[in-house]
Amino acid sequence: MSGGQPRITLLAGGVGGAKLAVGLTAVCAPEQLTVIGNVADDQEFHGLWVSPDIDTLTYSLAGLIDREKGWGLANESHRVLDGLARLGRDTWMYLGDQDLATHIYRTELRRQGLRPSAIAQSIAQSLGVTLNLVLPTDDRLQTRVKTAAGWLAFQEYFVREQCRPEVLDIHIDGLAEARPTPEALAAIEAADLLLIAPSNPVVSIAPILEIPGVRQAVERSHARRIAVSPLIGGRTVKGPADRMLVAAGFACSNLGVADSYAGLIDGLVIDAQDAGDATALAKRGLALKITRTLMTGAADKARLAREVLAFAGQPHPQDEALSCP
Amino acid sequence: MSGGQPRITLLAGGVGGAKLAVGLTAVCAPEQLTVIGNVADDQEFHGLWVSPDIDTLTYSLAGLIDREKGWGLANESHRVLDGLARLGRDTWMYLGDQDLATHIYRTELRRQGLRPSAIAQSIAQSLGVTLNLVLPTDDRLQTRVKTAAGWLAFQEYFVREQCRPEVLDIHIDGLAEARPTPEALAAIEAADLLLIAPSNPVVSIAPILEIPGVRQAVERSHARRIAVSPLIGGRTVKGPADRMLVAAGFACSNLGVADSYAGLIDGLVIDAQDAGDATALAKRGLALKITRTLMTGAADKARLAREVLAFAGQPHPQDEALSCP
Repeated sequence: MSGGQPRITLLAGGVGGAKLAVGLTAVCAPEQLTVIGNVADDQEFHGLWVSPDIDTLTYSLAGLIDREKGWGLANESHRVLDGLARLGRDTWMYLGDQDLATHIYRTELRRQGLRPSAIAQSIAQSLGVTLNLVLPTDDRLQTRVKTAAGWLAFQEYFVREQCRPEVLDIHIDGLAEARPTPEALAAIEAADLLLIAPSNPVVSIAPILEIPGVRQAVERSHARRIAVSPLIGGRTVKGPADRMLVAAGFACSNLGVADSYAGLIDGLVIDAQDAGDATALAKRGLALKITRTLMTGAADKARLAREVLAFAGQPHPQDEALSCP
Repeated sequence: MSGGQPRITLLAGGVGGAKLAVGLTAVCAPEQLTVIGNVADDQEFHGLWVSPDIDTLTYSLAGLIDREKGWGLANESHRVLDGLARLGRDTWMYLGDQDLATHIYRTELRRQGLRPSAIAQSIAQSLGVTLNLVLPTDDRLQTRVKTAAGWLAFQEYFVREQCRPEVLDIHIDGLAEARPTPEALAAIEAADLLLIAPSNPVVSIAPILEIPGVRQAVERSHARRIAVSPLIGGRTVKGPADRMLVAAGFACSNLGVADSYAGLIDGLVIDAQDAGDATALAKRGLALKITRTLMTGAADKARLAREVLAFAGQPHPQDEALSCP
């Protein structure tokens, strides 16, 4: 633990990651917090670069998110999409007007040659986000999902097909060649506490961890390393993480989640509905926190964040020396 | 005159050109009509390619124009601009949401390498325009206006500065190197009647005529060639054509308009308020039609179009052989 306030780095996907990030901002100072987001579900629509997970983080942290949906901006309209539909374009990716401002701005700055991570920071700062939002890479990653109908881009599977097709395989293009951003590596190296959000381990967290150099940085870290499981009652709250764990060769349970993070975490936070997993998880040498992990409101998010921090601060069963806030 | 219906080609700028184009569609079949628009006031905003004069033509011919303003789409909203303003962007170019759909689509297709003229036709057809809308060139032209504060892009002068600065000079970048589209040359060559709309001679019509090869095609044409003056009572209805004529070295009168089209027109339609110009114009060898040229509603547009066609069909004082509808 460094002097002063502990530095906390959160690896996060979209909705679940954003909720925990918001919870952390309620109990920590923004200068303590770095969030490393996922860019592998980015996709170009209408020639504009859309970065759904990063935008969900940004809008959530800026207090602008559509709380009902968990993504997109509140009070949105869809006039541009109406116009694009009139021009004969596919509009299944339901982009709002004010959201499109973000994509237009991002695309303009990318075409000017700015680093995607600098652009993400600029957008976040413009919207009032005070913590450090970092991209894991400035290179292009693209999650693809194999279904009976062939390979789909992630958003095609997720939004257009609404996660209905069976997932036969998952591949993240560009991962082997990607370089981590110096900011992401520094945030991992400097962290006193490394958190993995309750996000999809396969398509949200793996595309961060598997960027060459990132897994190694997490492995070498002296930080307490805690994941919050995205499963509740053996299933995901939202999204296809459960089925994707299976497609990626893991069990659809907290054991599968733990296996997907093998060697990278010291502790796991699981939901009370999955308390039955505790014995098997403890055998894997993991510290465990069993609580209510569903985050339905601001109070819930803050409570879970507080519990995660308290859990991280407890002496670890295998390593009495570590301590946290 | 070829067999069947006469082929009419209109060279047009923005608002005034669009009004005459709409008038022509009321009295002619769409397959008779080709409109060649102006692309020199195109400009990129937020990384999107905006083509104001072409869009004014397209929206007018599609019946979607904001009739009060004369440009932009009816029932527009500005949610994207609100979003861009929140991101700290300049939003003086007041682009509507549905209008932005056009710019997003155009920009996407340009980046895919499609010809700008094919894109303009595709947009026009998607919106229900049935006549032939043609770009004069697929190359980039950029009108710049010199003011006391230096050179401005046309839209900076026109929209941001609201035409307030004195115009010291005008230059159209790219004009000498531009190549005409085959469609524009064909439409001029095939025309039985060549019309020049009541548009700005300096920044709307000259950027068409001065593309290498276009002036020559108009000079060689056997069509009756008629311009409608943009001046009423020696001034423009809207826009800075009067001041621009002066900046370009012409008189701010119908004589200046006629001089700017010297060798390219056989006749000129002027407003009754400028009947005093008739004698001097006749001395230049021009056939003259004196009428009310203001087009305030649909009936006005059709009436002027009908009068222009009737005038074009009259025997020319210098050439009794020509006849038109």
